[in-house]
Amino acid sequence: MAKENFVEQIADIEKDFPQWYTDVVLKTKLVDYGPVKGTMVIRPYGYAIWENIQKELDARFKATGHQNAYFPLLIPMNYFTKEAEHVEGFAPEVAVVTHAGGEELAEPLAIRPTSETIFGSMYSKWLQSYRDLPILINQWANVMRWEKTTRPFLRTSEFLWQEGHTAHATEEEAVEETMKMLGVYKEFAENCLAIPVICGKKTEKEKFAGAVATFGMEAMMKDGKSLQAGTTHFLGQNFAKAFDIKYLDKDGAQKYAYTSSWGVSTRLIGALIMAHGDQRGLVLPPVVAPTQVVIVPIAAKKSGVMEKCAEVKALLEKAGVRVILDETDNSPGWKFNEWEMKGVPLRIELGPRDIEAGNALIFRRDTLEKSEYKLENIVAETQSLLKTVQSDMLEAARVRRDSRIVYANDLAGILKGVDGGNFVKAGWCGCRECEDKIKVETAATARVYAEGETSKTCAVCGKRAKHTVIFARAY
Amino acid sequence: MAKENFVEQIADIEKDFPQWYTDVVLKTKLVDYGPVKGTMVIRPYGYAIWENIQKELDARFKATGHQNAYFPLLIPMNYFTKEAEHVEGFAPEVAVVTHAGGEELAEPLAIRPTSETIFGSMYSKWLQSYRDLPILINQWANVMRWEKTTRPFLRTSEFLWQEGHTAHATEEEAVEETMKMLGVYKEFAENCLAIPVICGKKTEKEKFAGAVATFGMEAMMKDGKSLQAGTTHFLGQNFAKAFDIKYLDKDGAQKYAYTSSWGVSTRLIGALIMAHGDQRGLVLPPVVAPTQVVIVPIAAKKSGVMEKCAEVKALLEKAGVRVILDETDNSPGWKFNEWEMKGVPLRIELGPRDIEAGNALIFRRDTLEKSEYKLENIVAETQSLLKTVQSDMLEAARVRRDSRIVYANDLAGILKGVDGGNFVKAGWCGCRECEDKIKVETAATARVYAEGETSKTCAVCGKRAKHTVIFARAY
Repeated sequence: MAKENFVEQIADIEKDFPQWYTDVVLKTKLVDYGPVKGTMVIRPYGYAIWENIQKELDARFKATGHQNAYFPLLIPMNYFTKEAEHVEGFAPEVAVVTHAGGEELAEPLAIRPTSETIFGSMYSKWLQSYRDLPILINQWANVMRWEKTTRPFLRTSEFLWQEGHTAHATEEEAVEETMKMLGVYKEFAENCLAIPVICGKKTEKEKFAGAVATFGMEAMMKDGKSLQAGTTHFLGQNFAKAFDIKYLDKDGAQKYAYTSSWGVSTRLIGALIMAHGDQRGLVLPPVVAPTQVVIVPIAAKKSGVMEKCAEVKALLEKAGVRVILDETDNSPGWKFNEWEMKGVPLRIELGPRDIEAGNALIFRRDTLEKSEYKLENIVAETQSLLKTVQSDMLEAARVRRDSRIVYANDLAGILKGVDGGNFVKAGWCGCRECEDKIKVETAATARVYAEGETSKTCAVCGKRAKHTVIFARAY
Repeated sequence: MAKENFVEQIADIEKDFPQWYTDVVLKTKLVDYGPVKGTMVIRPYGYAIWENIQKELDARFKATGHQNAYFPLLIPMNYFTKEAEHVEGFAPEVAVVTHAGGEELAEPLAIRPTSETIFGSMYSKWLQSYRDLPILINQWANVMRWEKTTRPFLRTSEFLWQEGHTAHATEEEAVEETMKMLGVYKEFAENCLAIPVICGKKTEKEKFAGAVATFGMEAMMKDGKSLQAGTTHFLGQNFAKAFDIKYLDKDGAQKYAYTSSWGVSTRLIGALIMAHGDQRGLVLPPVVAPTQVVIVPIAAKKSGVMEKCAEVKALLEKAGVRVILDETDNSPGWKFNEWEMKGVPLRIELGPRDIEAGNALIFRRDTLEKSEYKLENIVAETQSLLKTVQSDMLEAARVRRDSRIVYANDLAGILKGVDGGNFVKAGWCGCRECEDKIKVETAATARVYAEGETSKTCAVCGKRAKHTVIFARAY
């Protein structure tokens, strides 16, 4: 069988990053286009990443006291009108069910674009006394937002996510929850996805429709653009008042609760691809990689080779490593290319000479380095290498990103910065006109406030700056 | 705080089983009604059961070579018309999206009632050669079937389920898959849910719309009615031909694949409730119970009691037992009632005298028996008891069911049998008229063929019987 040159089939990552992305997601069978425009089919290899993401996040949600539940997909349209900003933000993107069971419905129903309204209506029913607080519920679900321009994982009409919805007695507790979950997301992004993120508050323009304040975590992709990888929202009493979420306090008074919500989605898979991928394809961090180690036999038909490979596989499996042994009749070169494209963190090569010498070669997908290890220590060496790859990938991404954060004092500086594929820190007076002007002139948007930094003047109008903001072009 | 008599708030299980069911599901906070008619909110206590069901089933699916994926919620309406029986079966129940993104859609979209059609369309695209077979994919998803009469878990317009969809080179392999997954379901139902099931083939009338043959597992509820707890379908080449699922075989010929599908849903939670529940509320089998053990301190304010309770809790937790310590200031009696209602399999009672004597009392929810155990062996005793409860619950359900399977030779016998809350085995000639007549006269339907049994004559027409069928009223 001819050695397939996968690399030539993937567009040049330097010259055409969008096409490189499309080539990689399709060729690695992470995803395919669904029959309805803007929908995606998450194929087994992509879904296995999502399962690992779910497992890691779900454990963190439970460790912070949250429980899972499931709320209905369909929401009465009139629910959206109860919170004025919310309806303005989401109504244009909603998919609407008008007929069911062979009849026209009396009231049209929205497919959830997000579930603050339906959680709110149920919390209103369940919440009686201060003893019932806090309510800390998360759900794993599909949501739908009808988008004009779509790309697999990044922006699709339907996607999978988790949405936490909490209710608290006081403003302090709801704010604390909002910040705590932002911290959970950050720790997860860095330690599981190996993606360094910048967390901070969003501007009024960029905040969630209906929130008092939105906090986001922003990740730099290899083209220098930003990807919003997760958000948490302090909702104040906006939804409590719209949905009558009240409780009887210790002092005998009826009070409105304070609520929060927070979510991450299958976008994270897009973030993984664009934060770590290279010309050969995916580079997956071990914690979420469906397969952590692939064993490739060299001269597989030689006596003892497959037996040794199977033995190593069994040892690794027993140690909890997600390992596969490639037993197909493809050539080693073909296998190398295929598993590199699929981003498997480690490849163990085992041939007759290695076995005779008591060695194995291990190839690292992240650094493309190959080294020799003693077969007798293979499990410990592999486990240790997986940890190293995980932390090295985070460190490499951090160095890459930090080298691409620049400062600007004026519009021209912001434009130059983002044209060069950077995040740009600049002063901003706080007015919407200046924020809009930056978008129009540079195609960059305010990602988050750069916490703890102070610029003197607004890069647009020159007036006194209220905030230092990170501007970037974004997915 | 007054001791609340929960039992009096639950309708009499003997006199009004449907109301008992409704009382139990609502009072134990398993579920609530959603704002849209026919929808349910699965609350944390109910969802935790579903998570345990998912975990157990998912492990079994993966052990039998299946991978998870996620296919789109929305299906073009015209897909349903491609398989003639399928559209007839599902079109009347479909919910339809006609507007999205502020515009009327060119083609209306169905919210999936089941996904054979969309899996079929993608398999057609992915399948090239015999080397790609079998395709073994499962998805965990929500589905929607617009029902006129709904009840939480049993029949709701939206529910959660898993649906496996497989494609094979030969009829034999597809049939083998269909029967293998039926076996997986049966083993799971018996060993995890402690529900004995009868598996068998369905009649033409009762089979899945579009299948060549449907196999079901039927469980007896405490009122003697049957609940279809899962089904597997051999689809032959029906969907392969409708969606052009073809492959290039070794012999160079293009051939249609053979497909199967199989699913279980959140109905299983309804089955758990009605197969095991009693006048006090839920009785949950340990494998899927969200909480397996509750520790109730007696005279909690006495020195050393809470400390000992916390110590026992920590020991059990460490051993992997799902345990909670009820530290509320409710009375022990209140706590007993509440946790019995919630169906927690074991209750450990610990008071000053028990601690002094080195003992603990353990109450079994299934048998309502209380016994004394040595505190020093508490972990081993608890683990052993959980296993005993699990197997005793299955055995008790089996004895209960087997005592309620009767035979009938004529329509009057079938009516008498089902009126008495039994499954009735009777001969059937195989014609639709006789099957319909049984439904009209007795409100019972053909559940499955009683494998290996042979009746001489049809209970309706008296002609030669083709099958022995289990008739029952069903959920």
